[in-house]
Amino acid sequence: MSKIDIIIVGAGYAGITAARELIRAGKTVKVLEARDRVGGRVHTQQFDDFYLDMGGTWVGPSQDRIYALLKEFGIETFKTYDEGKSTMLMDGKLKTYKGLIPPLPIPVLLSLDMAIKKISKLSKNVDLSEPWNTPNAKYWDSMTLQTWMDKQMAFSKAKSMFTIASEAIWATHPNEVSMLHAMFYTKSGRDFDTLMNVKNGAQEERILGGAQSLANKIIATFPPETIQYNAPVKAITQDGDGVEVIGKDFSYKAKKVVVALPPTLAGRIDYQPLMPANRDQLLQRIPMGSVWKCYAIYDKPFWRENGLNGLSASDNGFVSVTFDNSPKDGSLGIMMGFVLANQAKDFSLLSPEDRKEAVLEQFTKFYGEKASKPIFYIDKSWAEEEFTRGCYAGVMPTGAWTSLGKHLREPVGNIHWAGTETSDVWNGYIEGAIRSGERVAKEILGK
Amino acid sequence: MSKIDIIIVGAGYAGITAARELIRAGKTVKVLEARDRVGGRVHTQQFDDFYLDMGGTWVGPSQDRIYALLKEFGIETFKTYDEGKSTMLMDGKLKTYKGLIPPLPIPVLLSLDMAIKKISKLSKNVDLSEPWNTPNAKYWDSMTLQTWMDKQMAFSKAKSMFTIASEAIWATHPNEVSMLHAMFYTKSGRDFDTLMNVKNGAQEERILGGAQSLANKIIATFPPETIQYNAPVKAITQDGDGVEVIGKDFSYKAKKVVVALPPTLAGRIDYQPLMPANRDQLLQRIPMGSVWKCYAIYDKPFWRENGLNGLSASDNGFVSVTFDNSPKDGSLGIMMGFVLANQAKDFSLLSPEDRKEAVLEQFTKFYGEKASKPIFYIDKSWAEEEFTRGCYAGVMPTGAWTSLGKHLREPVGNIHWAGTETSDVWNGYIEGAIRSGERVAKEILGK
Repeated sequence: MSKIDIIIVGAGYAGITAARELIRAGKTVKVLEARDRVGGRVHTQQFDDFYLDMGGTWVGPSQDRIYALLKEFGIETFKTYDEGKSTMLMDGKLKTYKGLIPPLPIPVLLSLDMAIKKISKLSKNVDLSEPWNTPNAKYWDSMTLQTWMDKQMAFSKAKSMFTIASEAIWATHPNEVSMLHAMFYTKSGRDFDTLMNVKNGAQEERILGGAQSLANKIIATFPPETIQYNAPVKAITQDGDGVEVIGKDFSYKAKKVVVALPPTLAGRIDYQPLMPANRDQLLQRIPMGSVWKCYAIYDKPFWRENGLNGLSASDNGFVSVTFDNSPKDGSLGIMMGFVLANQAKDFSLLSPEDRKEAVLEQFTKFYGEKASKPIFYIDKSWAEEEFTRGCYAGVMPTGAWTSLGKHLREPVGNIHWAGTETSDVWNGYIEGAIRSGERVAKEILGK
Repeated sequence: MSKIDIIIVGAGYAGITAARELIRAGKTVKVLEARDRVGGRVHTQQFDDFYLDMGGTWVGPSQDRIYALLKEFGIETFKTYDEGKSTMLMDGKLKTYKGLIPPLPIPVLLSLDMAIKKISKLSKNVDLSEPWNTPNAKYWDSMTLQTWMDKQMAFSKAKSMFTIASEAIWATHPNEVSMLHAMFYTKSGRDFDTLMNVKNGAQEERILGGAQSLANKIIATFPPETIQYNAPVKAITQDGDGVEVIGKDFSYKAKKVVVALPPTLAGRIDYQPLMPANRDQLLQRIPMGSVWKCYAIYDKPFWRENGLNGLSASDNGFVSVTFDNSPKDGSLGIMMGFVLANQAKDFSLLSPEDRKEAVLEQFTKFYGEKASKPIFYIDKSWAEEEFTRGCYAGVMPTGAWTSLGKHLREPVGNIHWAGTETSDVWNGYIEGAIRSGERVAKEILGK
């Protein structure tokens, strides 16, 4: 048997990027993946005539590492459709509008605009690599994003709009997010406008062939049998010589291990010796967001004919935002709706039929009667997935960054940590996962 | 082999109380305990000449269930020593004072007193059995206790005192506690004064023989081999017929199982079928507090000779509060110091020698030179314990009660939940654990 240098737990973008860098440096790597596929929270599901990105989907400006890899592997991107008017459903009233400024009373718009500018400005002071060293870190970490919003905005409609944006960004209610984390995350993804927007924003482009296609191409360069599928890791033991990584019917020894899992799952592995108290306590404090991704497929993107771009926002109903996720050539109409944060939790209690009905009812409100009769409907919640248990990512509640943040990336003996939650840039995104994989490889290689 | 009706996971006070009630109702019960003893977070450690309560210690008025059990099993209680003056170290200045009112400027005292009265008053509106149905629940759940304190008190010294009290109550910084949870917990334990105080408070009495002695007596009434020690549970599977509870080298089937563990540990068990998303997401959101309990033993309680009661509070140093935990007859002097919340996390990074030095230095500041030379020193952190991972209890961050609270106690098929965190009365205390055990037994017996 060949001796393994490094075991990697999890074949999401963090894990396979780490594996790629370590293999390129001449190391023998074994990747243990609980599922029967790579990609983790990025999953492109194939159907007869189309594919759907059931998890991570978009790429955008300043996501330099994923764009470099896409280029290297010859994978194209294309613009997210955003021509025409956006749709807004507030207080039961449907309105459409051109551009970025929704049809709200001027004082509401000014209040909202000030809040967006303010959070972006505040975020500039964040120390991305050590958020707990940000000026007044404890002050910001003592309040929720909701508390800050309540101070910042007087108009309930402004707060509603900001809530919709926040839930679309974090997949969690602003009352669960530390303001310091919100500032960190805002800077990590450049600014609040970038996080929110399609054009010049985090939702600007999609990946031709689906977001998992890059992962598939990366692993095709690995030596045979690098990845073992259906191999959930249950325990990791270590001593001075190295590590042993154990699952139900396997056990591998290596010099080092990289755990590239969502924090809450990294915290459920049985470590011997025990994880230090502070590391364990930190992992008790990084809950995952909750989101359902709901797709309705139509024979064509009919909303475009009505001058609509497929972007909607609503302060009521399960679906609070929608995107046009049709194929590049528009040969089908694919409408995607997010059910986010607390709505996602209530949505989980519905039957599949009731979920479908609720989504199509909302789509019909946005786009008219045609939306009620799709060719196909599918939805997915990452909180129901055994090997993710929430999406998009782990979100820091109040107090966590300043009391325990330094234990997020610090290796514990021969155990190293990756995953998008450990990234200082584009934390929570595919880009962050890739950066975390590259960072952990450097850490191990001593670069 | 005898058929088991109910398996109980965890032999803390919740688990053994549930077991007792079920056995009394004629059920066949198996208790699986990870440690080699009962008591869970309550552990009375025996030494040659004395014993120490390394975990839960005190009982007080309105803790009716534990008092009833103590009486039934013939176990005495005795008053926590509180005769003489208390000690306060603030801004580097040491002061002693008689009674409950610390020597602070009148405006500070008024501000502090108003805050304490206010939180007790606010807490009266909490719906203990369904905190999410409390009036304005979402409002209170959107802010941290720290945010409320910042609004409520203008004086930093008042806030410091309130912080010390809060940390002593929750073992976590006020910036980690949802204000709704703080209100819930305050009402759950009667009021804020009760939670804080020795006389008429949660620290009023101690249990002769140690707090674990009741647990030992309860299990002595169980049929032989009811409890299996050194049996950490790894997985629970269930189908229509019942449950199977699995550890490294055992597996038991039963009709039902009660999981009586801290929430964060209940969340690490491998459930098949998978825990529903909302239950899993909730358990991602109930981190444990952090506390070190530090004991110095002297040949006599010398501070008493100086008219001091052994109660101290400090806004600086690792130890923020102390108690006189000497034996009932005062034959030894036992001083206990709590290192709480974020101080506990930093304390975990010190060597055993440095921890001892830091504690004795603080004790010496409080009680003079004699405190620097104990006969014996010992400390314990429950966050370092594999089968607890934090103390006193799980604490709700913002947003958790209102979004997911209803999943805290709701059985999942044949799996039922106990533990002090599931109790509506005296949540977080031994009394709450006992009440949760009695509640879950009734739930199972259909009463």
